[in-house]
Amino acid sequence: MQKQNAGLTHVNGHGKANMVDVTDKQITQRQAVAEGYISMSTQAFTMLKDNTHAKGDVLSIARIAGIQGAKKCSDLIPLCHPLMLSKVQLDFQTIDGVNGDENKVRIQALCKLAGQTGVEMEALTAVSVAALTLFDMCKAVDPHMQISDIKVLSKQGGKSGDWSC
Amino acid sequence: MQKQNAGLTHVNGHGKANMVDVTDKQITQRQAVAEGYISMSTQAFTMLKDNTHAKGDVLSIARIAGIQGAKKCSDLIPLCHPLMLSKVQLDFQTIDGVNGDENKVRIQALCKLAGQTGVEMEALTAVSVAALTLFDMCKAVDPHMQISDIKVLSKQGGKSGDWSC
Amino acid sequence: MQKQNAGLTHVNGHGKANMVDVTDKQITQRQAVAEGYISMSTQAFTMLKDNTHAKGDVLSIARIAGIQGAKKCSDLIPLCHPLMLSKVQLDFQTIDGVNGDENKVRIQALCKLAGQTGVEMEALTAVSVAALTLFDMCKAVDPHMQISDIKVLSKQGGKSGDWSC
Amino acid sequence: MQKQNAGLTHVNGHGKANMVDVTDKQITQRQAVAEGYISMSTQAFTMLKDNTHAKGDVLSIARIAGIQGAKKCSDLIPLCHPLMLSKVQLDFQTIDGVNGDENKVRIQALCKLAGQTGVEMEALTAVSVAALTLFDMCKAVDPHMQISDIKVLSKQGGKSGDWSC
Amino acid sequence: MQKQNAGLTHVNGHGKANMVDVTDKQITQRQAVAEGYISMSTQAFTMLKDNTHAKGDVLSIARIAGIQGAKKCSDLIPLCHPLMLSKVQLDFQTIDGVNGDENKVRIQALCKLAGQTGVEMEALTAVSVAALTLFDMCKAVDPHMQISDIKVLSKQGGKSGDWSC
Amino acid sequence: MQKQNAGLTHVNGHGKANMVDVTDKQITQRQAVAEGYISMSTQAFTMLKDNTHAKGDVLSIARIAGIQGAKKCSDLIPLCHPLMLSKVQLDFQTIDGVNGDENKVRIQALCKLAGQTGVEMEALTAVSVAALTLFDMCKAVDPHMQISDIKVLSKQGGKSGDWSC
Repeated sequence: MQKQNAGLTHVNGHGKANMVDVTDKQITQRQAVAEGYISMSTQAFTMLKDNTHAKGDVLSIARIAGIQGAKKCSDLIPLCHPLMLSKVQLDFQTIDGVNGDENKVRIQALCKLAGQTGVEMEALTAVSVAALTLFDMCKAVDPHMQISDIKVLSKQGGKSGDWSC
Repeated sequence: MQKQNAGLTHVNGHGKANMVDVTDKQITQRQAVAEGYISMSTQAFTMLKDNTHAKGDVLSIARIAGIQGAKKCSDLIPLCHPLMLSKVQLDFQTIDGVNGDENKVRIQALCKLAGQTGVEMEALTAVSVAALTLFDMCKAVDPHMQISDIKVLSKQGGKSGDWSC
Repeated sequence: MQKQNAGLTHVNGHGKANMVDVTDKQITQRQAVAEGYISMSTQAFTMLKDNTHAKGDVLSIARIAGIQGAKKCSDLIPLCHPLMLSKVQLDFQTIDGVNGDENKVRIQALCKLAGQTGVEMEALTAVSVAALTLFDMCKAVDPHMQISDIKVLSKQGGKSGDWSC
Repeated sequence: MQKQNAGLTHVNGHGKANMVDVTDKQITQRQAVAEGYISMSTQAFTMLKDNTHAKGDVLSIARIAGIQGAKKCSDLIPLCHPLMLSKVQLDFQTIDGVNGDENKVRIQALCKLAGQTGVEMEALTAVSVAALTLFDMCKAVDPHMQISDIKVLSKQGGKSGDWSC
Repeated sequence: MQKQNAGLTHVNGHGKANMVDVTDKQITQRQAVAEGYISMSTQAFTMLKDNTHAKGDVLSIARIAGIQGAKKCSDLIPLCHPLMLSKVQLDFQTIDGVNGDENKVRIQALCKLAGQTGVEMEALTAVSVAALTLFDMCKAVDPHMQISDIKVLSKQGGKSGDWSC
Repeated sequence: MQKQNAGLTHVNGHGKANMVDVTDKQITQRQAVAEGYISMSTQAFTMLKDNTHAKGDVLSIARIAGIQGAKKCSDLIPLCHPLMLSKVQLDFQTIDGVNGDENKVRIQALCKLAGQTGVEMEALTAVSVAALTLFDMCKAVDPHMQISDIKVLSKQGGKSGDWSC
């Protein structure tokens, strides 16, 4: 900061919070994919697949919620930069529980951007909001669902290079 | 998407929603103009022109609401991209009803952007929110107003070229 | 206001804006129904009915957008009170154009509340945002659609009593 | 709805979405507790406990994000009712990984309301947003963290009675 | 919290943040008045009074911004409860600088609510956002304006009783 | 605007509001620093320094609120352009009142951007929201605090050149 800041001292370090300065970063194409799962009872799962939940079209609504959630990322997560996503895509896969495994819905989100910062938080937010929406749509049938294994699957663009799990 | 998506199948197509991928589109200057109308009783219309509605300065407040509404477009419309409008302008025209025609206020919005996607949805949103605000300001006098003929008048920039109605 | 306001004068009346004081109003059950229409080309209309628009499931996404829009009413319209909707419902009807009439989608929204103020602006906002979303979903096929005839159909509860068009 | 709806037919059921009508529900005290976990590498975990992450005071910022997230629940989840939380509380617990288990942070959220609808979605949203914020704060050190086991622990008030896992 | 919280320990106290629990508080009528000032050069002040600033109708726009700002209070201030304001009113007074005093605009905001918590933060937020908007509208003419003396003037309702400065 | 606007006349100038057109402005690095103060009683001030306020970690929470507030600037201030801040930083300094002076907390905010418009409104908004949050956190101890001397300290980049107070 400028010289008029000379006398300014952080007050005993409480609550330090540093938003990374991306002013000088290059604008490059960036992309991230995240995923997560929600497990549910066989009744709730069957109704989801048959599209018979009373609150409506479960996956359709979760998809929209996830897309809208990705756009709200910097409003939800304090140190995220506002950015202009050029693409958000949500995909769902139903995984029948066999041999005692749980029935699960897999949620996957892809976010893209031509910008100065990565978009993995946007992809993770899309997955989380979609999962919460699935929970809301099915909770009358199964209030004991569980959201799990939310993580970044792959990331492209930016200084840290490409990687995938 | 990446190869880890290989096993992923859309679940029976319900609720498909595709946000157009604009990552590779060029940043160009874009502009759109939209318009709409609200018709009202002679009493409400006269009070609007005389600026005597009890809730206040009708057109002033509608103008601000329209500008703010344009900025919220991607929050309201699920598949719109977030973008950074460089200009929003709202104009109003009062049209006296003659020969049995209705009294109308014409609302026109101009939006501009240097970006990757068109701004007609932003202009239409500005018109719609301004019209709703006009309704709210005048509804104590005339609860039977009608908002009509909201459309895009012209569009410039982008792949589809320039056009006007 | 209080006596310390004694010396305060409105500055030349510019921009007066009065949010109605509802502090003393009773909490009653209130309900409003609004409707609106969007007209479109036969191609866009057929694709909507066949659910083949490239951006996805047109009515599904418009429905969610309308519900979410109703909740944002007081954020969009400056003098609307914040309130807690207890029900929002969107319904769509496709109306084939015969004898040269236009093809139309009819959008109807119902809002309910136990509160101190009417909910017609929320119902109108739901209709408007749903109509804008229909526009966004179909505009690649028909950029010349028109949104029309947005009005309040009926209102129940509150001081002004029940009425319908 | 009213009789003017008589001719209205749902268009082929796509995208049905029913916001539960809570207009006639009694206002009662309601409470919900939700929890979730984020697992991370020993390095990231140690830095979190020592409060040495470069982006700042991890738990402090996640706590605020979780509280703010709970308030945004009805904006994020399409069919949630807007409501006025009377209390939101976030608690964190660090759990050292022993015998090859992973290091984890446990996030717990309590939401309270005197209202017409349950608050478990608000508590789940608080947990999810706090978990995403923890991810954002620590991802420079460990980009492979995982958010898991988000569920409702207990619920009090309302028609379905009290229960806990 | 419940007994399942028994093993939970606050992690070293960092970032504690307690939203006051108002669940059991009575719903009473509450009101608060706040004020603040912005001082500006004679040129900017004269243009404000003559309504000749290039960006438009300064006080009109600041008034709307202040009303909208009051509604956003709980979104801006982390530990504020969401609430449903029943009245927001903004008043402005121009005070000519005499004898070397500065020219000032006085901003006063009144907020009302029938609810469980006081509304002084809403009134202060309305004043602050109106002041910021005045700054934005006039800054092309005077970038050295100063916003000052924002405080609560009076408060009515609630446990702490009525008081005024 | 376009030629179809030919017949359009501003309706008697009420509520004019011009968002500056920045479409043709160059993207340059821009930076602004703003500051403000809040004065409080010795008891509230001592508790702030000792971090013993009942609502929690005062400066930590104000810092986050300020950062989030900066991102919301264009939503709060009607004619501000939406933009993508690349850096927001908040700093606090406690200034003991000596010789009868008041105890004060100094709040300073830095905002950065590579964009088409200045960021002083964002820096001022960050300071204002942080000050309001400090007020909220300490008001149980001192309801008579005062927020003052909010102004721009320096500005860099853009057509008007660099300057500092």
